[in-house]
Amino acid sequence: MTEKTAPRRTQAERRRASREKIIREASRLFAEYGYRGAKLAEIAQAVGMSEPGLLHHFPSKEHLLIAVLEERDRVDHERFGQAILEERLPLMEGLRALVAHNETVPGLVQLFIVLAAESIQPEHPAHGYFSQRYQQVRESMMTLLQKAQQKGEIRTDVPAEHLTAMVLALMDGLQIQWLFHPEQVKMSAVFDSFLTLLKVTPPEETV
Amino acid sequence: MTEKTAPRRTQAERRRASREKIIREASRLFAEYGYRGAKLAEIAQAVGMSEPGLLHHFPSKEHLLIAVLEERDRVDHERFGQAILEERLPLMEGLRALVAHNETVPGLVQLFIVLAAESIQPEHPAHGYFSQRYQQVRESMMTLLQKAQQKGEIRTDVPAEHLTAMVLALMDGLQIQWLFHPEQVKMSAVFDSFLTLLKVTPPEETV
Repeated sequence: MTEKTAPRRTQAERRRASREKIIREASRLFAEYGYRGAKLAEIAQAVGMSEPGLLHHFPSKEHLLIAVLEERDRVDHERFGQAILEERLPLMEGLRALVAHNETVPGLVQLFIVLAAESIQPEHPAHGYFSQRYQQVRESMMTLLQKAQQKGEIRTDVPAEHLTAMVLALMDGLQIQWLFHPEQVKMSAVFDSFLTLLKVTPPEETV
Repeated sequence: MTEKTAPRRTQAERRRASREKIIREASRLFAEYGYRGAKLAEIAQAVGMSEPGLLHHFPSKEHLLIAVLEERDRVDHERFGQAILEERLPLMEGLRALVAHNETVPGLVQLFIVLAAESIQPEHPAHGYFSQRYQQVRESMMTLLQKAQQKGEIRTDVPAEHLTAMVLALMDGLQIQWLFHPEQVKMSAVFDSFLTLLKVTPPEETV
């Protein structure tokens, strides 16, 4: 292939653009057909590449999987995490917005929750990723919840550590029920009710 | 094989005993190696049967899987569900006991949560089972939570329907975190804190 007609992009830029396109199509196909169901050859075709061409960017399907997971984390972090950490978005509103956003991307939600559960097994290709992710997310969530407690925004009669595990567990568990019965289990509504439970109740509990 | 020395059990009794033994060993092996990892031949061997002998009782691995899942439900129902429904065990104590019991059977918990997530896909052999199970469990849980609300045992400012999805989601989600990090996420402690959130708080909220 001659590159005479290509715009003046460096090789690194072209490489990055290809990676982004592969990740985008892989996310779409993993979400639609599942990790096992989506074939590398199909992903390559969707990107307009040969399979060896794709493997040049991601040496295996597992590498591609991890890249897809990290990309979703990056996008979600940019959209919600960063705003919350920089206190431009109050924690409770941020979490509510994240749950509402998840309701618009069932394919990705399914991909994530299935892989999270499957990868409990230490041999699973995404085990390290999810193990680390839960730990990191718990750490930052706990810092945020502690701050909210100090500011008197949420109850303090339950340890922040427990609230942290609770918030994440609730999100994960609701996703399973919602994916089975989207008409019966409204993630956002249930999550809102949970936030009601966290509110500081009148005099006694405001420490 | 001659059956002259067998005690006077009817054929139906012997058949039932064999089924029970197969389910017991399959539960153990599914929990240890996962549904895919456990081979029918190994299960047959553990029971002291040939593979065709086992297939005589369960025509496929999927049939055996469903039997294992139903057996766990039956045992848990006998141990907790029935006592709660008959009001011999208060709901909150019963749920706490169930979570504590789950902490003693990580293999079964893992089997359940992985299959629940995997079977979101309509083609999965356990899809019908889990879809129905979530619906049934939500129905009975909601009745119990409504009763607890009427008796003034838990808050009424959040709909029972939302509390129902919340309790189940919390249990499922905590199992994932606990299986990844049993030292960091104590299911029982977190669940207890959740029960604290459900308590009716002093005057205003007692309707």
